[in-house]
Amino acid sequence: MSQSVKGSNLRVDGNALWVDLMETAQYGGTPKGGIRRLTLTDEDRQVRDWFVRTCTDLGCEVSFDSMGNLFARRPGLDNALPPITMGSHLDTQPTGGKFDGILGVLGGLSVLRALHNSGYTTRHPIEVINWTNEEGSRFSPPMMCSGVFAGIFTEAEVLDKRDRAGIRFGDELDTIGYRGKEPCGQHPISAYFELHIEQGPILEAEDKTIGIVTGIQGARWYEVTVRGKDAHAGSTPMPLRHDALVASAGMIMAVSEVAKAHGPSAVGTVGLLENRPNSSNVVPGEVFFTIDIRDPDDAVVLQMEQELRGKLEKIAQENSVELEIVQIWDAPAVHFDKACVGMVEEAATEHGYSARRIVSGPGHDAGYVAKVAPTAMIFVPCKDGLSHNEEESILQQDAEMGANVLLAAVLKADQTFDQ
Amino acid sequence: MSQSVKGSNLRVDGNALWVDLMETAQYGGTPKGGIRRLTLTDEDRQVRDWFVRTCTDLGCEVSFDSMGNLFARRPGLDNALPPITMGSHLDTQPTGGKFDGILGVLGGLSVLRALHNSGYTTRHPIEVINWTNEEGSRFSPPMMCSGVFAGIFTEAEVLDKRDRAGIRFGDELDTIGYRGKEPCGQHPISAYFELHIEQGPILEAEDKTIGIVTGIQGARWYEVTVRGKDAHAGSTPMPLRHDALVASAGMIMAVSEVAKAHGPSAVGTVGLLENRPNSSNVVPGEVFFTIDIRDPDDAVVLQMEQELRGKLEKIAQENSVELEIVQIWDAPAVHFDKACVGMVEEAATEHGYSARRIVSGPGHDAGYVAKVAPTAMIFVPCKDGLSHNEEESILQQDAEMGANVLLAAVLKADQTFDQ
Repeated sequence: MSQSVKGSNLRVDGNALWVDLMETAQYGGTPKGGIRRLTLTDEDRQVRDWFVRTCTDLGCEVSFDSMGNLFARRPGLDNALPPITMGSHLDTQPTGGKFDGILGVLGGLSVLRALHNSGYTTRHPIEVINWTNEEGSRFSPPMMCSGVFAGIFTEAEVLDKRDRAGIRFGDELDTIGYRGKEPCGQHPISAYFELHIEQGPILEAEDKTIGIVTGIQGARWYEVTVRGKDAHAGSTPMPLRHDALVASAGMIMAVSEVAKAHGPSAVGTVGLLENRPNSSNVVPGEVFFTIDIRDPDDAVVLQMEQELRGKLEKIAQENSVELEIVQIWDAPAVHFDKACVGMVEEAATEHGYSARRIVSGPGHDAGYVAKVAPTAMIFVPCKDGLSHNEEESILQQDAEMGANVLLAAVLKADQTFDQ
Repeated sequence: MSQSVKGSNLRVDGNALWVDLMETAQYGGTPKGGIRRLTLTDEDRQVRDWFVRTCTDLGCEVSFDSMGNLFARRPGLDNALPPITMGSHLDTQPTGGKFDGILGVLGGLSVLRALHNSGYTTRHPIEVINWTNEEGSRFSPPMMCSGVFAGIFTEAEVLDKRDRAGIRFGDELDTIGYRGKEPCGQHPISAYFELHIEQGPILEAEDKTIGIVTGIQGARWYEVTVRGKDAHAGSTPMPLRHDALVASAGMIMAVSEVAKAHGPSAVGTVGLLENRPNSSNVVPGEVFFTIDIRDPDDAVVLQMEQELRGKLEKIAQENSVELEIVQIWDAPAVHFDKACVGMVEEAATEHGYSARRIVSGPGHDAGYVAKVAPTAMIFVPCKDGLSHNEEESILQQDAEMGANVLLAAVLKADQTFDQ
């Protein structure tokens, strides 16, 4: 192929990117303008089918591995080299927005489109990846399939995960038709770049367009079961109760208090709670809930865990209930590859975009991919820092600038990496 | 018919009553030995069908009114007289036991059987009633159809009630085939006796077999909605959150504290709670829960309500969330008919059973029926006072003695009432 086009002159088509975002928002679109596209549901299948069709039309070959991770590949000059990759996830929260995850996949697609339309040929193959089940909302924990890719989880344990209705991950993967033959993780990559919305308030507050993400804060997740005793709400005297919900209420407040005590960076959340038997006139006999604690400093996360264990035990005793705490996820703080972070920074500078270095609050697939390949991330602002919410909102121009940085960083990596 | 049998010599068949209890426990029976027979489900239909067959075999005619309340009628000498009635409910809690409600219906059936087998003829017709939706667990509030019978609720409002899945009461009543033509409430009765397990610890603690129930404590129910803002659990700083679950946790503890402050008789319970969007890494944006407060003294219930409203408003403000409280049920304290209570007391005394007067903690259909007919209740002990629990347990001999008191009280009423 001719190489008449200069890489540094390339730009993504911001309008086409925006059209892609609005078109895919229909798959699982909600009346409030958000998306409910839980992993491995039929809505997930629909958006995957769209992605496969669209990438194929751009001359890419699309494959998927044994965990359903999708790889849309544009050949390079030397197809023996592992690809330079981009990506994120197409699944959403139950009341998610139109940009969390999707922007990173469609931003990658806009890079493929820019290369395709210009006829520019890279040295490495270029790939866009959609990671299965980033959100961890239906099947826990999150980032499950980039986790398998990086050797954090085994394929077998993930296939056997069940959602709260008891449905098996592996069965649902078969049902939507996206279980591939390539074993997950046997797909070498040269570098990985993930474009994402910040999901926090910092860039907007400082009027910056690009976040040069240097790493991800540490996080731990726990599943807590509180066991009391079902009893009649009308006739069981207060001192004789073993009320699992009253005990859990104390614990929920403890999670919030411990996080506040380690402020301003630490956060602690009880996001999911199930109350049983859940009837107005029955004293609750069992409550199940999750705890999510995070801080950029792993030592602080550990300290929070220790404080919480002490407080929860005490609350359980005071309320005459049994307590079970299972740690289901431990994601130490991640530090991205210095060279890749530098490419993002250079790209933003060369474009003249306002930018700052930033640590990610949320976890991302990039956190796991960083364990097996040089990795970095690019953030763009979202309105009011709001995410995991149907009102999640970004500016078209910010999406375009983020994708332009992604394109430039990928082309720098293409020139830099020799494998 | 000959009247060679003396009423005071009649006894129920305790074995047959126990067999009925165990047989009906199969409809909705759970692995743990309890029953899940939510109102107007197919399990409810099955036990109703059983009841109709069994009563028909005893020579009764079974009818049902526009709310699905069932009436199994044994004719008397003067069928122009309104019937002397017995009854309770066949529906259960989601994790209910084998005796709550069912004992009153099958105890009534055992009285019909005693009359049938002995050939004893009463002056009044005798009826056993199954009231639809006593539990209020699937469709709220409880005692819905005895409530319509007594003119507390209108037929139209009840038919339009929806369960948490949005399914309409009237549609489900049609589906199970128990919507009758007789308008609910146009069914005069002379007197009503309800046999029930105590659902509390008093009789067992005092080694008494019969509770002569003089009334029911007052109760109020509320539905509370707490509205905050969904946000990402990893990146939303603690001070910027509008966490509906943390706010609700404070409110749940307030309900418990207010009830304890009015001890020992007052109780307060949050039994049902729904958290939204209910995902591990999303700060909860909305929580819905119920509050149930009770005390034998209506003034105390009112006082508790006032205290709770103040505390909940304060907690909502402190947590930057919106609060909506809707009172959905107000059941003032009930005082049963002195003559009927006297008949229960005499019956217990004549049988030589140990007995005490008692105020009911839970609400019962009898509380509404008492508004339109002379009414009383009979309690028997349950193990550890445990109810609304799959482990709910009673002694066969206590069930038999309770049904013998029911039989004797009904025959006294048959002699006493002239209408």
